[in-house]
Amino acid sequence: MTNAATESATPPTQWVLTLSCPDRPGIVHAVAGAIATRGGNITESQQFGDPETGLFFMRVQVEADLPQSELEASLSPVAEQFGMTWLVDRVGRPMRTLVLGSTTEHCVGDLLFRQQSQRLPVDIVGVVSNHTVLQPLAEFYGAGFHHVPVTKATKADAEARLLELVDEMDVELVVLARYMQILSDDVCTALAGRVINIHHSFLPSFKGARPYAQAHDRGVKLIGATAHYATASLDEGPIIEQDVERVDHSDDVTALIAMGQDVERRVLARAVRWHAEHRVLLDGHRTVVFR
Amino acid sequence: MTNAATESATPPTQWVLTLSCPDRPGIVHAVAGAIATRGGNITESQQFGDPETGLFFMRVQVEADLPQSELEASLSPVAEQFGMTWLVDRVGRPMRTLVLGSTTEHCVGDLLFRQQSQRLPVDIVGVVSNHTVLQPLAEFYGAGFHHVPVTKATKADAEARLLELVDEMDVELVVLARYMQILSDDVCTALAGRVINIHHSFLPSFKGARPYAQAHDRGVKLIGATAHYATASLDEGPIIEQDVERVDHSDDVTALIAMGQDVERRVLARAVRWHAEHRVLLDGHRTVVFR
Amino acid sequence: MTNAATESATPPTQWVLTLSCPDRPGIVHAVAGAIATRGGNITESQQFGDPETGLFFMRVQVEADLPQSELEASLSPVAEQFGMTWLVDRVGRPMRTLVLGSTTEHCVGDLLFRQQSQRLPVDIVGVVSNHTVLQPLAEFYGAGFHHVPVTKATKADAEARLLELVDEMDVELVVLARYMQILSDDVCTALAGRVINIHHSFLPSFKGARPYAQAHDRGVKLIGATAHYATASLDEGPIIEQDVERVDHSDDVTALIAMGQDVERRVLARAVRWHAEHRVLLDGHRTVVFR
Amino acid sequence: MTNAATESATPPTQWVLTLSCPDRPGIVHAVAGAIATRGGNITESQQFGDPETGLFFMRVQVEADLPQSELEASLSPVAEQFGMTWLVDRVGRPMRTLVLGSTTEHCVGDLLFRQQSQRLPVDIVGVVSNHTVLQPLAEFYGAGFHHVPVTKATKADAEARLLELVDEMDVELVVLARYMQILSDDVCTALAGRVINIHHSFLPSFKGARPYAQAHDRGVKLIGATAHYATASLDEGPIIEQDVERVDHSDDVTALIAMGQDVERRVLARAVRWHAEHRVLLDGHRTVVFR
Repeated sequence: MTNAATESATPPTQWVLTLSCPDRPGIVHAVAGAIATRGGNITESQQFGDPETGLFFMRVQVEADLPQSELEASLSPVAEQFGMTWLVDRVGRPMRTLVLGSTTEHCVGDLLFRQQSQRLPVDIVGVVSNHTVLQPLAEFYGAGFHHVPVTKATKADAEARLLELVDEMDVELVVLARYMQILSDDVCTALAGRVINIHHSFLPSFKGARPYAQAHDRGVKLIGATAHYATASLDEGPIIEQDVERVDHSDDVTALIAMGQDVERRVLARAVRWHAEHRVLLDGHRTVVFR
Repeated sequence: MTNAATESATPPTQWVLTLSCPDRPGIVHAVAGAIATRGGNITESQQFGDPETGLFFMRVQVEADLPQSELEASLSPVAEQFGMTWLVDRVGRPMRTLVLGSTTEHCVGDLLFRQQSQRLPVDIVGVVSNHTVLQPLAEFYGAGFHHVPVTKATKADAEARLLELVDEMDVELVVLARYMQILSDDVCTALAGRVINIHHSFLPSFKGARPYAQAHDRGVKLIGATAHYATASLDEGPIIEQDVERVDHSDDVTALIAMGQDVERRVLARAVRWHAEHRVLLDGHRTVVFR
Repeated sequence: MTNAATESATPPTQWVLTLSCPDRPGIVHAVAGAIATRGGNITESQQFGDPETGLFFMRVQVEADLPQSELEASLSPVAEQFGMTWLVDRVGRPMRTLVLGSTTEHCVGDLLFRQQSQRLPVDIVGVVSNHTVLQPLAEFYGAGFHHVPVTKATKADAEARLLELVDEMDVELVVLARYMQILSDDVCTALAGRVINIHHSFLPSFKGARPYAQAHDRGVKLIGATAHYATASLDEGPIIEQDVERVDHSDDVTALIAMGQDVERRVLARAVRWHAEHRVLLDGHRTVVFR
Repeated sequence: MTNAATESATPPTQWVLTLSCPDRPGIVHAVAGAIATRGGNITESQQFGDPETGLFFMRVQVEADLPQSELEASLSPVAEQFGMTWLVDRVGRPMRTLVLGSTTEHCVGDLLFRQQSQRLPVDIVGVVSNHTVLQPLAEFYGAGFHHVPVTKATKADAEARLLELVDEMDVELVVLARYMQILSDDVCTALAGRVINIHHSFLPSFKGARPYAQAHDRGVKLIGATAHYATASLDEGPIIEQDVERVDHSDDVTALIAMGQDVERRVLARAVRWHAEHRVLLDGHRTVVFR
């Protein structure tokens, strides 16, 4: 790939390996062995055994001067032996991401900004919206814009178009950045574990319409946001991240919404970063987050 | 009123006045006038007009060298004119407080500690519990301990005894410091606005038994606590204060409970302080908190 | 301006009044009287008497159906009597703001975004930078861009140009949004109380170059930001707002900088909002913030 | 050790292993191998390679049904091979701790409370103070109290007595819980890595006497606390944990001190817990904290 002279100057590639499997003795030893055999050096690693589900989770960063296929070949027998769900990826490789928005720009704009300025490890290959408001913003940041209107009558077509876009552009991650449309169970299933949603959260929680108005009416002192994987039951997928902001009696509904937007974009950006860095592993309907 | 010698040495007394009434022009002017007439000086003041309920709220601290009765006499006609709910108190006067606990000491102990060490402006006249575990702690801090067992059969008697204690000891504030017993609607009504409760809170909220286990099962990333006035519907009284603590996948139920205790005692202590300092005013089923 | 028919349907204008003066009895009464005389209704008000400086601070929101000049005329004798520093403004009037940036967009972009989407009550009349990187961003949000290069030799000219721009565009507020240039004492004095700066903050603080590298080297667990008024001594002006973000040993300098940017833009946005809403009053080298 | 019948009922012991050494390939594999050989199961593990110091850090929890000496014997050759600093301990074993206090009880009392109620994994074998104020508190919680007065003249004797107590009681950890005495360099060196100190922290930091008064004078909006290992230069040892609390202009010095106490005891309790659980590893003058 490179000649010897330059090779000596190039730092070895960083790889990330994540895995989960039923917990039993010898996993770490076997994985570390498969890595050591190929001259790899483990630079960062986190493990967690869940006593309740009996599952074991591991995320490893490896410095190794070899192609991905060789690393995978070395790990494959171990994975088989322990019944692992696993993946290998290059550290820092931008994840191909499709952002779905509606009319509010705070989450979409924030992801575009962070991709460009803060090395958020995603490659936003497109912005999809059922409105056109976000088009200039998407284009300003060089992301293709796809207008996919949704009405009751066209919802099935719109979702088909969405899956087509995911397919055409090799999308790995779909982010619902205040998309305001509920994905059908079929789409959720088709994209399971690859769709991140953000929504407001309160203590206590409020069901139904106009949640900020309900929160204001109830006189809450904190408003929050939750980022989670989308599942068939929209707001009940595995939680990735949560945070809150302090409010008081003088904050009206408009102020609550503005503060809510702040916490939403902060929480969503963290969830997307951790997902793109393969720090989030599914443990049933919970997540293990190796921050 | 006092002779020159003492006058120069004694700072004038600080008074706190709180009021609420239907909002209309002239309230502040009238109140300020009634204070200025008696030579009082407003040193701190907060107001809030709620556009939704049409109510106006005010908390004023006044420096004035006169007895409470005179200040009240001066304010009384104004209060009548505007239909005010109002009170006058001396700043820093310890509020006579009865603390109800069960078997866990974190909230009870924290209030006792803060009363002694941090000038929490309460005078804890007694600790009531349906168990005896907290007796040594109460006595260590010099608070009288009252064992009032509660069973299904004796609940009415126990509550009667509680109201008796409130009466006998001129209790102004009752704090449910993880009391674990639900007060009857009658007691809540009898002590309306004078009972502060603390309970755990989550995003989303969980109904039913073992909430920390539910929260753990759901994989929440934040656990919180809410302090509120007790009303007939236990956990739905007006919220005074809320806060959260960050948790992760490796925190088991025991860890969540320990962290929950921390946030519970912090939130409860703030709510008690603000109530005792007359910073919390009721606005329907919400609170106005003049921090 | 409007005929009687529509006038009856228009809600009365909201005014904000802020003042500070030496503390003595009667201030609130006098102010409230001047407002009540003109039929004004106080809807929100906060006061604070600083026992150390002996100064009294007040912020009042008034509902009143009259021109600004009449409200001012009514207050003017009171202001004179008590030696007040004071101002009256219309609630929600966008403050004419000039944003100074350098090459990083996180603070500049965030202010532009919030002006447009979250009703941050500023009118960003221009973006000034010593580089051209921010030009497309400024233009995307419709703000004029002014390239004012700064070298050692041209610093005086650049500052003259800056003051000219402030003058030409009736700028009320200058925001140093990671401007990376130190304003001369003369400019700070000329614009005293009208320039907000943002900078990183740590516990402990670090002097000199590459503060994030120093913070990383020291192993801090929190990084923060401080928004303050610019004064002759750059980072020591009156503090308006501070906040922090949690970091750990695995965050390298690049990660710290990205997290620092997040907290910087959050803190700066709050400070600008509070200033534009006349919630920040100067109390010597401290601020009183009526949030 | 136990017969077959009980053995089957007893869950295997949990061990914790921590190590640090120069980073090179094969460490994890070798460690995991030494554990797997003895039938141990790794249930939790965290690693970190510091690219700057070239050091590798690891914390492993192991489920293994064997005595500590056998586990150590198995690991010893690996430790030697890689030049490790390492230790093995039983998970949950209370660390023998000596708490040093002065006249304020908030930190001392909090540690005693948490030991008893929240399973803080320490065994507080004694409280040492240069005053007698804390004696009843120590005795209430069943900890021996040692009055060791300190004057300029007796400082050397007092420190000798302290080291004697450490020795006599096999103390593993010394906590300076607002002790207010500076330990000599000799004591710091003798107890290096075994003394945790807590102190207030601000942005910016303040040198010299009455820091809360300085912070108030400067008008800070946050006050904080830092827990760190004591080293010869008192407040500059490796940082374990930091946190902050929000304050405003109306908080006087007394209020700041009370709020500071809250954040101090919270931060100290976390640092002590993490240390006692072997979660804190030294990386030069920084710490790696495996939370």
